[in-house]
Amino acid sequence: MVQQERAARTRRALIQAAAEVFAEVGFVHASLGAISQRAGVSNGALYFHFANKSMLAQAVEAEAAESVRRLTEGARARQGDSLQAVVDATHELMGTLARDVVVRGGFKLAGDIARPAKSPLRKEWQRWVEDSLRLAERSGALADGVSWADAARVIVAATTGLEVLGAKDASWLSRQNVTRFWELLLPRLTGRRALNTLVCSGSRPPADLPARAQPQLTAPER
Amino acid sequence: MVQQERAARTRRALIQAAAEVFAEVGFVHASLGAISQRAGVSNGALYFHFANKSMLAQAVEAEAAESVRRLTEGARARQGDSLQAVVDATHELMGTLARDVVVRGGFKLAGDIARPAKSPLRKEWQRWVEDSLRLAERSGALADGVSWADAARVIVAATTGLEVLGAKDASWLSRQNVTRFWELLLPRLTGRRALNTLVCSGSRPPADLPARAQPQLTAPER
Repeated sequence: MVQQERAARTRRALIQAAAEVFAEVGFVHASLGAISQRAGVSNGALYFHFANKSMLAQAVEAEAAESVRRLTEGARARQGDSLQAVVDATHELMGTLARDVVVRGGFKLAGDIARPAKSPLRKEWQRWVEDSLRLAERSGALADGVSWADAARVIVAATTGLEVLGAKDASWLSRQNVTRFWELLLPRLTGRRALNTLVCSGSRPPADLPARAQPQLTAPER
Repeated sequence: MVQQERAARTRRALIQAAAEVFAEVGFVHASLGAISQRAGVSNGALYFHFANKSMLAQAVEAEAAESVRRLTEGARARQGDSLQAVVDATHELMGTLARDVVVRGGFKLAGDIARPAKSPLRKEWQRWVEDSLRLAERSGALADGVSWADAARVIVAATTGLEVLGAKDASWLSRQNVTRFWELLLPRLTGRRALNTLVCSGSRPPADLPARAQPQLTAPER
């Protein structure tokens, strides 16, 4: 293996290990010794890549932000319907929080009071949801009397809650739980016509489940 | 002032000061010196009341839990309608988070990764919401096809999100914001009959505003 490759691999292992330790004990109690040990590298190798703990935290946050950006951009690229893109991205964000320790560590740092509130993660998610709801309003997908701003606020509040609660109990992040949320919220957000085409469980079958027809949302029972 | 009264007043000042410092810098960075100074008492007086920082944190959490219990029990005692009691209690919880630093400090500690996850606050709120939704279902107040458990999960996720986001930006806690949340969620949770009697802005005019007729929720525009 050439030296450059080895360095990249070590850096990756350190970010992964740091995310795990940050997610478990928070920024203040995370020790660089524990991180280098978990990454299977020497302290010297750690300091070669990261001058201090803050630099490591920034690297975790940057990588988590990149993952969130990828999944939101992917959802919009695949989905012409802005509301469905938000539904899809919510499922993917929660799935990623459950599976990917770097994203989980990044959000943990974003909520860690010991860290300066510079993390881009929650802000970027909020901005993307707002943008998407603005597009949905412009395309006439929102019900009369529902503003993009109100809809975005409810979605951001609920997804932030799922993220925080999911850090202690992963069942909050499940596809079923996220689907139930959309089943309760979507009928009010959107007009009847749009409702029949939206899929609360996500328009893209989860990669880790056998592909099957996704149940469509029926009109509310009232 | 008799000695007992003075001791009670000192204890109160210490809990208040501790809650402020915990809310501002988190558990790990809170110093006992800063807390006693802010309370206007000596270090010796602090140690007379609290053996260490954990005891102070527990006192803040216990007092915050007591406030939450008072407001949930009050909402249910005043309101025969369980759903309206949840709407009212949500408004009061957010208002209390905005006004009362001990409750704010208590919730901050509940989400502080440096503290063992023993805080009763979020669990007690969740249990109360679940109980109330179970009562609502039993009384036929929920729409067909809506289960108390799903409704409770959405409400707990959204209120946890409001609490977390509100710690950095108090506009999330405003009566207007909480009202918008209920305006978007309630029409789907409840049947048409119940909808006409529920008040999304809370059935009790805010104490700090002039009493006025609360607008009632109209049926959704679809």
